[in-house]
Amino acid sequence: MEQGKFIVVEGLEGAGKSTAIASIMSVLTSSGIENIVSTREPGGTPLAEKMRALVKEEHEAEEIQDITELLLMYGARVQLVETVIKPALNSGNWVVGDRHDLSSQAYQGGGRQIPAETMQSLKQISLGDFKPDLTLYMDIEPRLGLERARGRGELDRIEKMDISFFERARERYLELANSDSSILIINAAQPIDKVASDIEVALTHWLGNH
Amino acid sequence: MEQGKFIVVEGLEGAGKSTAIASIMSVLTSSGIENIVSTREPGGTPLAEKMRALVKEEHEAEEIQDITELLLMYGARVQLVETVIKPALNSGNWVVGDRHDLSSQAYQGGGRQIPAETMQSLKQISLGDFKPDLTLYMDIEPRLGLERARGRGELDRIEKMDISFFERARERYLELANSDSSILIINAAQPIDKVASDIEVALTHWLGNH
Repeated sequence: MEQGKFIVVEGLEGAGKSTAIASIMSVLTSSGIENIVSTREPGGTPLAEKMRALVKEEHEAEEIQDITELLLMYGARVQLVETVIKPALNSGNWVVGDRHDLSSQAYQGGGRQIPAETMQSLKQISLGDFKPDLTLYMDIEPRLGLERARGRGELDRIEKMDISFFERARERYLELANSDSSILIINAAQPIDKVASDIEVALTHWLGNH
Repeated sequence: MEQGKFIVVEGLEGAGKSTAIASIMSVLTSSGIENIVSTREPGGTPLAEKMRALVKEEHEAEEIQDITELLLMYGARVQLVETVIKPALNSGNWVVGDRHDLSSQAYQGGGRQIPAETMQSLKQISLGDFKPDLTLYMDIEPRLGLERARGRGELDRIEKMDISFFERARERYLELANSDSSILIINAAQPIDKVASDIEVALTHWLGNH
């Protein structure tokens, strides 16, 4: 059986990831790809969702350490990749992920400024050579993205960080997107119809080549 | 203020760690050391206890991956070390720990056979140069230890592993204890009074030199 492909949507809060995922699903099904599994990170398995909750919630009595947060993120990722994503791909399903490793690179590596060497070892330990076939990075200015996200309701522990945290995360996103041909940058500040058509064009082109 | 010392008790299930901790407490207080904090791993902070629960519980619907287990152990350890152990030591308290990093080396490194390189990077990422001043390793044959532990009641997910898992863990414990002068081996198969007096002698001798 032919191996499925793993497509990931990345971006800051309010970049329109959910809308982007809907556009991707629609392009894939129009192209005759029927078996699609969707995942979200951190989370996506019963255990990984419990780890997600630990990362997201406020810890009144103690400060969650940056390394603890990072280890929880990678623990949840390993669990999802090994028990959901790889088995799905191996049985011919396509997987569309709401966030994956690039989020850790941007938020924990860029935002929290965890050293590159630490980020690299942990990625190697947890994922080895596994990576998405295609990533669509929804690029938006943090100020604009957060404004949109705030419009949706209450923010979690990470979403409440200072604007400079998100500026560092965006910088890391762009840096990595510019150095990896499997990551495409979508201008997410455009009107919603234009964003959707950009995704459709980019994905259709990519599908033609893969 | 003088920095406190960090003393750890290690060993397999049923090795008599709790009794050993009681002996240590009694020697320390007799020596005039009054401010003693006790910790257990994995756990010891509200967040770390939640991570402990995820490691210990059965996961009906999915198999917890070895690397996920390891990342949860280290996440809990970082949280405990940074928010409890280091602040306690820095303010002059002594800390007596029920398990610490040696447990991961023995159980995940030895028992689960996670590669040495992975164990080493994760230890470095999580702890840097931090290590206990003294470790008392309670050595016992797995068969005997598990018999004692079973007598106490239900076993958790890890305690239910095959005997060969515990044999590999014991081998790793002994290997590391023999190559590190800060780890003392106590013969835990002896009668309880003899174990207590061995601990008293070893600890009193160590206190005289530190």
